[in-house]
This record gives sequence, C-alpha cells and structure tokens, in this order.
Amino acid sequence: MSQANPFTSTARRPHIEGPFQPEEMRLANRNSGLLLEALRYDVTPTGLHYQLNHFDVPYVADDAWQVEVAGRVARPASISLDEICTFPARTLPVALECAGNGRGAMSPRYPSMPWMCEAVGNAEWTGTPLRHVLERAGLLDDGIEIAFIGVDRGFDRGREHAYGRSLARDVALSDDVLLVWAMNGQALLPQHGFPLRLIVPGWYGMASVKWLHRIEALAQPYDGFQQAVVYQYRSEPGGPRTPVTHMRVKSLLIPPGIPDWYTRARLVDAGPVTLTGRAWSGGGVPITRVEVGVDGAWMPAELAAPLGPFAWRGWRCMWHAEPGEHALACRATDANGETQPLETRWDAGGFGNNAVHRVHVTVRAKP
Amino acid sequence: MSQANPFTSTARRPHIEGPFQPEEMRLANRNSGLLLEALRYDVTPTGLHYQLNHFDVPYVADDAWQVEVAGRVARPASISLDEICTFPARTLPVALECAGNGRGAMSPRYPSMPWMCEAVGNAEWTGTPLRHVLERAGLLDDGIEIAFIGVDRGFDRGREHAYGRSLARDVALSDDVLLVWAMNGQALLPQHGFPLRLIVPGWYGMASVKWLHRIEALAQPYDGFQQAVVYQYRSEPGGPRTPVTHMRVKSLLIPPGIPDWYTRARLVDAGPVTLTGRAWSGGGVPITRVEVGVDGAWMPAELAAPLGPFAWRGWRCMWHAEPGEHALACRATDANGETQPLETRWDAGGFGNNAVHRVHVTVRAKP
Repeated sequence: MSQANPFTSTARRPHIEGPFQPEEMRLANRNSGLLLEALRYDVTPTGLHYQLNHFDVPYVADDAWQVEVAGRVARPASISLDEICTFPARTLPVALECAGNGRGAMSPRYPSMPWMCEAVGNAEWTGTPLRHVLERAGLLDDGIEIAFIGVDRGFDRGREHAYGRSLARDVALSDDVLLVWAMNGQALLPQHGFPLRLIVPGWYGMASVKWLHRIEALAQPYDGFQQAVVYQYRSEPGGPRTPVTHMRVKSLLIPPGIPDWYTRARLVDAGPVTLTGRAWSGGGVPITRVEVGVDGAWMPAELAAPLGPFAWRGWRCMWHAEPGEHALACRATDANGETQPLETRWDAGGFGNNAVHRVHVTVRAKP
Repeated sequence: MSQANPFTSTARRPHIEGPFQPEEMRLANRNSGLLLEALRYDVTPTGLHYQLNHFDVPYVADDAWQVEVAGRVARPASISLDEICTFPARTLPVALECAGNGRGAMSPRYPSMPWMCEAVGNAEWTGTPLRHVLERAGLLDDGIEIAFIGVDRGFDRGREHAYGRSLARDVALSDDVLLVWAMNGQALLPQHGFPLRLIVPGWYGMASVKWLHRIEALAQPYDGFQQAVVYQYRSEPGGPRTPVTHMRVKSLLIPPGIPDWYTRARLVDAGPVTLTGRAWSGGGVPITRVEVGVDGAWMPAELAAPLGPFAWRGWRCMWHAEPGEHALACRATDANGETQPLETRWDAGGFGNNAVHRVHVTVRAKP
C-alpha cells in the first residue's frame, strides 16, 4: 500500500491483488450492507438498507435546517426545511444500489469499500420534487447543471472537499427527483441523511446526496471531485472516463437453507425449495425476465407484481433439490434488452459490477 | 485456511496471522458496528447500534408469537407475546458490547468476526422482567439454570444448532433481566430480535438471545455449543476455559477532526478541541474515572451525569491541539478499581479485548 500522506498526495492508489488490506477492513466495518435474507421484504426494514458514507456522519441537532439555493437563479435564498415540507409531497419506493457494489469481487481491485454484493436496499422515500424548490428560486435559462452539496467533509486523494454531486437540468427537473425528509414513514436516520437528502431514482446511490446543505445552479459543468474524478467508469487506471449514472440491470438471490457461521457455506434439505430474490434496473426501465441457473442450466422465474417504477421486483422459482453440491445463480433482463453478464466486467474504480449472483449450496438427503 | 467440510468438521479453526481472509471480509460485510461519531448520542439511533448475528436473521411474519416455557417448571406452557406484554413493563438504557469486539486487533487472531472497536451501542430496551414469566410457569427449586433458545439455526465447527445460551437461576431472577419487545420506543427490528428477545444488562451481548422461542429450566448446567464451547476465555487454543460473562471496563473516543476516505486518517485544526466519548463497565459497576492520553501523558476527563446503572457514561476533556502528529487515547476505571490495560490481552477466541482506544491525528495550523 502507498504510505503517501493522505492529506496531500493526489496520486492514484495502486490496485490491490490478493488479500484484503487493513484499510479495506476498516471500511467494511464502517459501512453496512443488506443481509441477503432481508431481500424477502418488499420494503427494506430500517437499519438493513445499505449505507456507505464517505466521511463522518455529521451531527445535526434539530430541524432548524436551511438549504441555500444559489447560482443561476433569479432569487437566491436560504429555504427552511419547514418550508420545503409545505411543498407537494410524494412517496416513492426506490431501489438504491452503491455504484461500487461488487468491487470486492474484481481482481485486481481498486482500494475502496470492498463490497461483495450486498450494497442495495429498497426503501420508501417521502419528500417533494426538487423542481418546486428550483421554481421558487427562479432557475435561469442558462442553469445547465444543478449541484448538490452536503455538510459531510473530508479528504480523498489529497483533496479536501464536502461531498457534492450534480445533475443535468432536465434530470433535476423531473418529477421523480425528490428532496426527502422521511424514509419508511419516519424521519431520516442520521446515517441516511437527516434532516434532508436528495433521492435520484434509477441512479446509483452516489447521486442521492445526504445532509443536503446547498443547491447551486451552474452555467457550466460541475467539477467537484466526486463528480469529475471518483464516480467514472474507466477501462484502465487513468484512462478515458465515462460518468457513472443509472444502475445496471441486476438481481440477487436469497441463499436457501442454513449457514455455517464462519464460512457462510449453505446447507439445504433435499426436496422442493422455493428460490426467491429481487431484480432491478436503472432509469426506471422495467425488469422483463429473471432466470435461475442450477448447475449451469437456466430456467425462467416467475415475476411478482411491480412495486413501482423505481422499486426492485420480486421473483421466485421452484427447484427440486437433489443431494450433492449445486451452483445456483440468477440473471435479470430489462425492457431495454440488457442482461446481466456471466462474468464480472472489470472497472478501474470497481464500479458497475452487475455480473450474475452465484450461491453455492450443499444439499443433504432428508433425515 | 482449513478447507475442512464446515458441516462435518469439528476441528478448531487455525489462528490467522497477517492479512484478512475472505471469510473475515464476508463477516465484516454482514455484521455492522457503531460509527464512532455516533458515540455522541446518549441513545444510539436505530440502525447504528452494533449487530452481530451468527446465522441468518429469521423471518417472523407477525406477532402471533409463542414462547415455550419448559423443563423444571410446575406449569410448562406456551406463553403468547400478547400475554407477556401484559406483565409489568420496564425501560432500561443498556450498553451492549460484543464479546469479540477488538478481536481484529489481536495477533494471531481467531477466525471469526474481525471487529476493531465498533461493536457497541446503548439503546433503550422495553420489556418485562423475565422473572414474571418464570413465576407464572412455577420455576421449581431444582431449576439451577435457565436456557434461552432462539429460532436462528446453523452450523459452527460441524455442530448444527439453534443459537442458545443460559443464565444461572439467581441472575435470571434479577429484576434487570428483561424479555423485550421494543428498542428505542419502537417494535424490535428483525435484525435485533423481532418480536421478542432477552436483554441481560451488564453482560456481553452473547447473553441477550434474539428471536426467543424457548425457555427451559434445567436441573444441570446447560451444555449448548455457544455456552460450553464458543464464549469461553482461553489463554491458549484448547486450553482451560473460563466463561465469558460481564463486560470488562472500556471506553471509546470520538475521533476529532475530519477523515480521509480510504485510510480514515484524521486531520484536526490547531486550537482548542473538545475530546469526548463514552465509557462503560459490566455487571452494573459504575464508571468512576476516565483519563485522556495525549502523546503518552494522561489527564482526567470530566464525567457526564449517569444515564442509568447499565448505560454507558459520557465524558469530555479539553485539549489544546498544537500542529504536528499526536497520539490520543482514553482509559476508563470502574468502581471495582478495574482499569483498561494499555496493551491487548490475547485470548484464543478473541474475546474481552478492553485495551485503551487509540486514535492518531494530524494537527494543522489554522489557515
């Protein structure tokens, strides 16, 4: 590992091959993922939704919270949370996935949070469309991007910054992009952005800025570090970049049977087993097909009723488990015809891994 | 790593020296700890309390829940959760810490969840003293231990079992040992034991059995795997064992300043800094002193008012930060005169690490 001064060195961190590093373990101990058995809940229970926070969770004493609306607007102002809560409210179930989900399965891997597959959740978010706030401030015609800045602050690759991201004007004005103050019917928890955050349905989680403190309309592209440098697909380190935006089509399987504590190996009793899980895609594109693989042979799963245009979708498939070792997998396809790849597509930053989810099980004869 | 069959091999897992293993990373991605900045809350917000679950979180559809009370009782019966909720209720703030907290800092370390220091929380639990249920069932005089069995099931070292633990009769009859149905004023979350769990204040978390399904009074010591084998102090693998019971005196410090994303290195602005954190001990023994160490020199911290006999206790200490590198630490002492050791005491299973918490910071001159 580079021993460079983290507060001054702007060098790229070298990729890691082989064992996990102490830095990766610290991040895994800080951030938390969905327990796969909790895929069974339509709405992810509070505290089981994945959370990834770049810096410390800021302490916000109360809800005397103000959001500064600035830049290319006719009426720059600080708007209180109380006023924002008077705008028309919407509640949307939204599948959110971390763009780095699956990074830990890449080789070599970028030194960052080593998610395997668990960085996802599907909560019900309540707030008001962002456009109401932009209309109140009088967004000017030359405001081509809207930047969102949180109060969380720290360093990454030698740059001190508050976490910030932007959206193009047309995306920001969509009725689905929300300023939210509630999750699953309750005030936001500190770690999910209390008292106010952005939710950008259909996008990877990095767009949904927490502890939202400043909204700035810009006449030029936003060049914040998390926008211009971090969340970019690259096929080689330092190579050409493509912004990370919508989630890629993906599915996860609830591991059947019971686990071994340490290895998490799974033991299943022979006989009929209902395999079930969730599938989602980005940009509001519906899931049209889920297949379940057993030892390399694919069979169709039955899709549950949709929960909403941006929510994950349930699926199930009966399997007659025979004693022995078996390789289970699931693969989703969306209405654009995009299908999960069988193998991980490598990315320099570890983003966008939507390879099929695989679960190995041992089946024992019924006693 | 041993490649033994996890469902049949009863061999001890060999200790690990050096880099973290994939099994450890899987456990770190499943279990979650307190974010140290959340030590500032008297009551740990929902979803920030540590959680460690040996097996899968079981799904419980509703609260038509029954607890079987069996063994050395005059009136064995299944008691409904509805009836348990009619018994006299108590709410207690309780600091709970995982017995394996700090395992990841031992060398060599036992192959299990590699906590650094974050496996703690302080929630308000609401329930009824267990003794009401034992009295209703008519605990017989020869019931010397009470066993508590959850519905969560799996393997560890080749033994299939439901998670179970026991308490000696006198402990179980204490007014402080609760059957709880609420945490922080809300129904238990699935991952914290919905719909009913045991809370044993003053003990490490393994005693507070979740998803409680069966209570059995025994005329002989309980020999469940988690009781007789797992949660035992041993100074050498396979050596003589001492049961893990009460929490050891401990304290944690909120890392001041702001972090670097990947290394979690901390940068602090020069000038006055309030260092603050929490301290707790086991068995209801009060904290009597907290000291803060700066570069090896110890100074007393001011204790906040106690929150309750089993809760953690706040403390604070002013520090005038001078530019440069500094080693911060905190050390608590309890009313029994027990003080945290400066160095980790090794344990074969990785239990009971209450060494002083150390935080390295870089202080920069004020701009």
